[in-house]
Amino acid sequence: MCDHCGFVDYVNPRIVVGVVCTWEGRLLLCRRAIEPRKGFWTIPAGFLEQGETPEGGAVREAAEEARAEVAIDALLGVYSVPRISQVQMIFRGHLLSPNVAAGEESLEVRLATWDEVPWDDLAFPSVVAALRHFGEVRGLLTFPSFRVTLGG
Amino acid sequence: MCDHCGFVDYVNPRIVVGVVCTWEGRLLLCRRAIEPRKGFWTIPAGFLEQGETPEGGAVREAAEEARAEVAIDALLGVYSVPRISQVQMIFRGHLLSPNVAAGEESLEVRLATWDEVPWDDLAFPSVVAALRHFGEVRGLLTFPSFRVTLGG
Repeated sequence: MCDHCGFVDYVNPRIVVGVVCTWEGRLLLCRRAIEPRKGFWTIPAGFLEQGETPEGGAVREAAEEARAEVAIDALLGVYSVPRISQVQMIFRGHLLSPNVAAGEESLEVRLATWDEVPWDDLAFPSVVAALRHFGEVRGLLTFPSFRVTLGG
Repeated sequence: MCDHCGFVDYVNPRIVVGVVCTWEGRLLLCRRAIEPRKGFWTIPAGFLEQGETPEGGAVREAAEEARAEVAIDALLGVYSVPRISQVQMIFRGHLLSPNVAAGEESLEVRLATWDEVPWDDLAFPSVVAALRHFGEVRGLLTFPSFRVTLGG
């Protein structure tokens, strides 16, 4: 939104940051309380804000959406969605405590085992991709970040 | 710039994309024809545009600034500059031919050996970091991307 005249537009590509994070192997998932895709499951993620690092933004999103305290350990993947001019940087991290709770943009949060991930009820293709990629590098301390272009 | 009222502002963080690329081990460097840091050396890099993938933007910048045809092979590093709300994604790539020439934003271009890199005349801290990181992973087919926060 233009602060000057109030007109809303997206002139530049926007950066989304998020994190796949775990507590004792369980994945932190949030059920969206807002559109788009209200009611579907996601990872903590949102638009990078002014003056933030991507890692800092991902930590903030986990705090806002899941009242979670998270430490980042790696860049899991970069998911480009050129149709909507988004670049999503999704990190891998771990929870510093199992104390999580729904923030304002979440209906509920949960710590899901791998077998409990609701694959058919995930909010966005990038969430599916990031969780799959998380599974592929589980047990690896370091790995090359995934790079994927998504159509959706 | 707001297309509606013409007001210029930078509300969102901006994405810079660029590439460290080589021909037979020689690094493609460009001497800047524009401010900031006119006359100093850099790698092809610039703002990601609407509807581009980061990789596509880096290839475009190499074409514009050095008339170079480049293929991307890895994400070298993510350099955050929160003070100016920039996230720089620098790739590693290789030239598809040694035919390079100064584009409109370059005074000259060169293919420099490692020993010829003008370290004291590089344009930006992120260029220094990306070239150093390129040297650290030379010979490695895959590697975890570097992640650095820069103050400048």
